Amino acid sequence: MTVEELARLIGGELRGEGKRELRGIAALESAGPEELAYAESPRAGARAAASRAGAILVPLGASVVDKTTIAVPHPKLGFIRAAEALRPPVRRVEGIHPTAIVSPEAALASGVSVGPYAVIERGVRVGAGCSVGASVFLGDGVGLGGGCVLHPRVTIYPGVSIGNRVIIHSGAVLGSDGFGYVFAEGRQQKFPQVGKLVVGDDVEIGANTTVDRGSLGTTSIGEGTKIDNLVQIAHNVRIGRHAVIAAQTGISGSVEVGDYVVMGGQVGIGDHACIGSRAVLGGGAGVLPGKIVRPGTTVWGRPARPLDEFKRMYAQLSRLPALAEKVKELSKGGGRSPS
Amino acid sequence: MTVEELARLIGGELRGEGKRELRGIAALESAGPEELAYAESPRAGARAAASRAGAILVPLGASVVDKTTIAVPHPKLGFIRAAEALRPPVRRVEGIHPTAIVSPEAALASGVSVGPYAVIERGVRVGAGCSVGASVFLGDGVGLGGGCVLHPRVTIYPGVSIGNRVIIHSGAVLGSDGFGYVFAEGRQQKFPQVGKLVVGDDVEIGANTTVDRGSLGTTSIGEGTKIDNLVQIAHNVRIGRHAVIAAQTGISGSVEVGDYVVMGGQVGIGDHACIGSRAVLGGGAGVLPGKIVRPGTTVWGRPARPLDEFKRMYAQLSRLPALAEKVKELSKGGGRSPS
Amino acid sequence: MTVEELARLIGGELRGEGKRELRGIAALESAGPEELAYAESPRAGARAAASRAGAILVPLGASVVDKTTIAVPHPKLGFIRAAEALRPPVRRVEGIHPTAIVSPEAALASGVSVGPYAVIERGVRVGAGCSVGASVFLGDGVGLGGGCVLHPRVTIYPGVSIGNRVIIHSGAVLGSDGFGYVFAEGRQQKFPQVGKLVVGDDVEIGANTTVDRGSLGTTSIGEGTKIDNLVQIAHNVRIGRHAVIAAQTGISGSVEVGDYVVMGGQVGIGDHACIGSRAVLGGGAGVLPGKIVRPGTTVWGRPARPLDEFKRMYAQLSRLPALAEKVKELSKGGGRSPS
Repeated sequence: MTVEELARLIGGELRGEGKRELRGIAALESAGPEELAYAESPRAGARAAASRAGAILVPLGASVVDKTTIAVPHPKLGFIRAAEALRPPVRRVEGIHPTAIVSPEAALASGVSVGPYAVIERGVRVGAGCSVGASVFLGDGVGLGGGCVLHPRVTIYPGVSIGNRVIIHSGAVLGSDGFGYVFAEGRQQKFPQVGKLVVGDDVEIGANTTVDRGSLGTTSIGEGTKIDNLVQIAHNVRIGRHAVIAAQTGISGSVEVGDYVVMGGQVGIGDHACIGSRAVLGGGAGVLPGKIVRPGTTVWGRPARPLDEFKRMYAQLSRLPALAEKVKELSKGGGRSPS
Repeated sequence: MTVEELARLIGGELRGEGKRELRGIAALESAGPEELAYAESPRAGARAAASRAGAILVPLGASVVDKTTIAVPHPKLGFIRAAEALRPPVRRVEGIHPTAIVSPEAALASGVSVGPYAVIERGVRVGAGCSVGASVFLGDGVGLGGGCVLHPRVTIYPGVSIGNRVIIHSGAVLGSDGFGYVFAEGRQQKFPQVGKLVVGDDVEIGANTTVDRGSLGTTSIGEGTKIDNLVQIAHNVRIGRHAVIAAQTGISGSVEVGDYVVMGGQVGIGDHACIGSRAVLGGGAGVLPGKIVRPGTTVWGRPARPLDEFKRMYAQLSRLPALAEKVKELSKGGGRSPS
Repeated sequence: MTVEELARLIGGELRGEGKRELRGIAALESAGPEELAYAESPRAGARAAASRAGAILVPLGASVVDKTTIAVPHPKLGFIRAAEALRPPVRRVEGIHPTAIVSPEAALASGVSVGPYAVIERGVRVGAGCSVGASVFLGDGVGLGGGCVLHPRVTIYPGVSIGNRVIIHSGAVLGSDGFGYVFAEGRQQKFPQVGKLVVGDDVEIGANTTVDRGSLGTTSIGEGTKIDNLVQIAHNVRIGRHAVIAAQTGISGSVEVGDYVVMGGQVGIGDHACIGSRAVLGGGAGVLPGKIVRPGTTVWGRPARPLDEFKRMYAQLSRLPALAEKVKELSKGGGRSPS
């Protein structure tokens, strides 16, 4: 594809050599003359000037001396679009590998690819164009929408329902039993974990992440939500749409998370807490059981507080030894001190 | 099963229509006329009154207007018992799947089911009635008691010993090498990790949890202990009986954990610490290496302190900016202030 | 092997019965008369005196009454060396299991063992003497150096490059997509995750650990670095040589970690932070995004501070309720107080 063709495709303004061929994407630093890069911020100017990229996506109104550029309103988004055109995903349609075990009572739509040693049990439905990786396990009655990508070794327990275009990375476990016991007669008695798990369209789930099914009710993950690696989502949790949840975060039972929520890594949320839409939880934040984080607020710390409050408190924390010293002085009869 | 029969089975007091048929269990909110629900607390009264459940388990002495109820001393426990009767676990006895690779030197008792692509190596013993899921790996000499359920893709390293009725969820890894090195000659030298791992009866282990074998000694998990998803248990750790350990908790090497200990999620325990029996560690608590948490105490925070102390300290923490302001005032010659 | 032979092999000074046969290694407490143990510290003296071990490694100049000892400069290191001689790793060279699926376009060097149900795709290169466990998945173009051990169920995404003598534990996922999205048009748009992952020689990676490939650039792990279980390493992270990273630590995107860095468990590092060589991060420490931890420093707490500063602050924290009480008293007109 030429730079000219690409500029037309993504609706950008070309400046420079339109006939140049592009064959891939890369970062400014590593791009070669047949690769597209992007420069989003003004600070990227110097790196852009030094880049060997064949073409550079820049913000509207910007340019780079002696470089071929395509100006677009949002260079990083333009780069994503361009990447789809320049580097189409290698989807090998191999059909059903002869070693895959597919129940005669499962229904696979057209264009489905199933890798070696995958196991697809009774009543499973797999939508058109899904790619099911090697050694994936789909339990009885699992439903997958169209266009899903399950990387090797994903495990989905019976009855879990997955939407369209969902991406699940290796080692993720969906629909495992929640962690619920009743202590009686001197031991922990397992409470039934027989509820559902429903995952919406366009969700992505990271490697080795675990999502439990509901105990009696339903665990649900809303459309467009993105979940990183090694995240734990407990039974009966309800997550809204287009949320972003970074690695190693843990969400306890029956928590509600609104739409467009953003969580940093290693966040912990106690059971029955409620995170309002568009709230932001800083990395490592800890929300106590039953607490409410109001919509649109940013919280941080463990236990989590509004960001401003946390920062004020934290600033004082650093000065605590000096403060203690001062109080000691005052109580010795100090009063006004020269310092 | 009729409500009458069920009441008799669990020893409860029936009030209402005993001839009604029950076919399953559900929550108060979602139960239909053929399902059993339970109402534990007085607060559940309104929800019980609005429920469409065919029958409701209630505490002794309680009832719900116009509803069929069974009164028992502990409704949630009664519900667990009833669930076993109404919703028997779907254990398909399929025998050994033809694609499972079972060493001729392994010994499988009667009624064992082994899923597709499982690998069972030399010297493995599997007790009666075990269910070994798809793609499970059991290394040389692993021992499983009777009635265990290993969900798909569990991995057990050689020599690990598992008790009776143990449930292990997908992706869990048992018996991996501990993390031990000696720094010498400019590099980390791997210390031998050749000890044992012994798991007691009635233990449950969550999805993608990891439990290391001992280095020279033994890692052990006592009878009835329940471990959630993504938990890490290091080498030489000894956990007592009937403990409960929530998700993403990490227990470092050589830690001792007593009986009936309860840990919230994301707890961290430093090496050689000792957690007394019936201690409770709040979510996210961090116990320093070598520390002792006394039996029966509740601790919280990082580093962990007794709960009361933590709460007092934490309350002051919120008031720290105001305290600093006050000290500033006093040191300016303030003395008594009007506020 | 006799004690005499072993002493010669590891260059130690024998005292006692040189003709005794040794057949294995053990801890002081559990060792029998045919096993070697070690006593590193003077405190181990009593345990050494009570040990039934056939021989004990002790520091130069030390001895144990009535015991056969071998004195070496570094008993724990000597023990590692002795273990290699006394307890050679059980590497069964079984060749390629008939159920392993090896692409005709993959290249396996001599002495490679591949377990049942492993899948090795196009363009993979496996170095001499590698052991690839059951159900391991190696994607297109993966490269393994010589002498690697991949335990069962390791997954490596396409294009990842692994050095020599690397050990990877079960359930680890290498080369998964990084977590990068651009929020536009009301949803999270997936940024390309098409970079590389390069793992150096002598690295060890724990069970269920996840390491993402670069987005456009490269994620790299330096020679000799050891990584525990359930660790998350995000895209574009660069880790130096001989670092040690304990369990459940999470390292965010584009972080740089120097050589010989040591991290405790559950550490969290924000994106673009920089950890200088030989720095030590205490268990649970949290480094803010973009922060620099200077080479050789020890930090702790969340957010992380230099250890001394943290300890001072933390000591005051415990006294905070008393401090507040004192200030209240002073502001009531207290001045000098008797206590």
